[in-house]
Amino acid sequence: MKLDDLVLEAAQLPQKTIAVAAADDDKVLEVIEEALKRKLASFLLFGKEQRIKSLLDDPSVVNDDVEIIDTTGPEQSAHLAVKAVHEGKADLVMKGMVSTSVILKAVLNKDYGLRTGRILSHVAVFEIPFFDRFLFITDSAMNVSPSLEQKVDIVINAVEVAHKIGYPVPKVAPITAVEVVNPDMAATMDAAVLTQMNRRGQIKNCLIDGPLALDNAISFEAARYKGLESDVAGRADILLVPTVEVGNILYKSLVYFANASVGGFIAGAKAPIILTSRTDSTNNKLYSIAMALHSLKSETEAQNNYLVSH
Amino acid sequence: MKLDDLVLEAAQLPQKTIAVAAADDDKVLEVIEEALKRKLASFLLFGKEQRIKSLLDDPSVVNDDVEIIDTTGPEQSAHLAVKAVHEGKADLVMKGMVSTSVILKAVLNKDYGLRTGRILSHVAVFEIPFFDRFLFITDSAMNVSPSLEQKVDIVINAVEVAHKIGYPVPKVAPITAVEVVNPDMAATMDAAVLTQMNRRGQIKNCLIDGPLALDNAISFEAARYKGLESDVAGRADILLVPTVEVGNILYKSLVYFANASVGGFIAGAKAPIILTSRTDSTNNKLYSIAMALHSLKSETEAQNNYLVSH
Repeated sequence: MKLDDLVLEAAQLPQKTIAVAAADDDKVLEVIEEALKRKLASFLLFGKEQRIKSLLDDPSVVNDDVEIIDTTGPEQSAHLAVKAVHEGKADLVMKGMVSTSVILKAVLNKDYGLRTGRILSHVAVFEIPFFDRFLFITDSAMNVSPSLEQKVDIVINAVEVAHKIGYPVPKVAPITAVEVVNPDMAATMDAAVLTQMNRRGQIKNCLIDGPLALDNAISFEAARYKGLESDVAGRADILLVPTVEVGNILYKSLVYFANASVGGFIAGAKAPIILTSRTDSTNNKLYSIAMALHSLKSETEAQNNYLVSH
Repeated sequence: MKLDDLVLEAAQLPQKTIAVAAADDDKVLEVIEEALKRKLASFLLFGKEQRIKSLLDDPSVVNDDVEIIDTTGPEQSAHLAVKAVHEGKADLVMKGMVSTSVILKAVLNKDYGLRTGRILSHVAVFEIPFFDRFLFITDSAMNVSPSLEQKVDIVINAVEVAHKIGYPVPKVAPITAVEVVNPDMAATMDAAVLTQMNRRGQIKNCLIDGPLALDNAISFEAARYKGLESDVAGRADILLVPTVEVGNILYKSLVYFANASVGGFIAGAKAPIILTSRTDSTNNKLYSIAMALHSLKSETEAQNNYLVSH
């Protein structure tokens, strides 16, 4: 499967509405216009109405699928966009020209926010040239140095996303610098604990085996060389990284040096939160939207997807 | 410059001798035979003499440039190889079929070892397809979670290697998940401190500027987008990683996903220590040998190199 296929499939799903916080920006509107052309979603655009209208390449996109809500600035845009999802007027939040912290503050608001019992975490799916399948990486953006309990939530968030994208039982590799438990490296112990929690049914709907190093998580040859007896080694779908530094640097290494494409969003809230950055390519932003839309599939839609993809 | 050029240039340097600990292994002998063909060095091969002789593809390589020293096993091989360097009979140590911990134990031995005042650290140089220059990464193998003081040594070790390979004043980027100081991320504070130590002349012969994220350390466009005023951003030669996890995973990401070539060795001892692994390609092993040989250049040889390369 390709990320472009995810976009095509997303257009076939029942139409959802994306609330964009601070849409009054040329780059943000560029991807929104592209998404509208591909019939990916309807949009509620929060921001300065006049500015939004003046920045549109093609003003005719403002039709039944687009509503512009005039606001006083980015903070109010974030507040109203999140509230629109809270009230059921929209299904996803997308960050426009407003800082991530402002969006997240609104998301975590007790009155109109989108909290669940779980922590928020970033889930990214990569398409890497010459690599034969998707690779999910989590969490490369939100949680700096997650505790074991937080890692459990991070895995659950990623497994739910993978499930909706066509992985009934994704293989999860908690990756560290080595594939053996080393008491001097706390992440190797967390990896072992997560593995056993999975075997005891405490983390469901996936297969966890770690610690693994990156090479033996994704390469059969490297796994075989180390003599690893594992259903995950060599064929991991989801890489759980130990810290945000590992995740961020691995993410950028794949984009800058391996020419990978990527989509991602924040999972763990009541609705997906799409945090694209100005420097992301338009395609990567579309992939993020498509991935977030897939995550909203019903169980039946997800099951149908297995039949098609696998 | 290419890593293949480093190999060609290494063959032109005054001949050095490599003491190989536990050379009685087909993969180890494969790279030694290749190095001999390219006239990179002379060798002292420690190991089971009969086994070494029987494993050689071309027994005629055992000539004036090769001496085999029969040993009782890997531990004695490591002991004697390190001792040979200590006694001036060889110039570098190379790991054969013996565990890294056994070699390092010998290197750190107080009587015949190779300690200096500095810590040992791994220095790797990458040639990445479609990236226009070498990228040094340190430390991706030795120090799990280095302290600030250890990071100073790690930088000095890498700067000395880069100097001998043709970088009079290498640009050093301490990379983290972000390019701003964040008290919740200790590595960003270490990065800022290292930068200021460099400006105060406490770390010489290089230009340090951090924290930087991977993208703005290596891409001008990403650096410009963040408005970074820096002589290092966008053009870093050396990436200092915060932990072995970051280094190891970045290293493997470059090799497995970006198809990068790499050479590396342990610096900081009285002599370079080459630690190749069975899964490394023969080329990467040769690059490691070449890089270690370059690090033994005299100051005059290094200066001549600047005239040629720059």
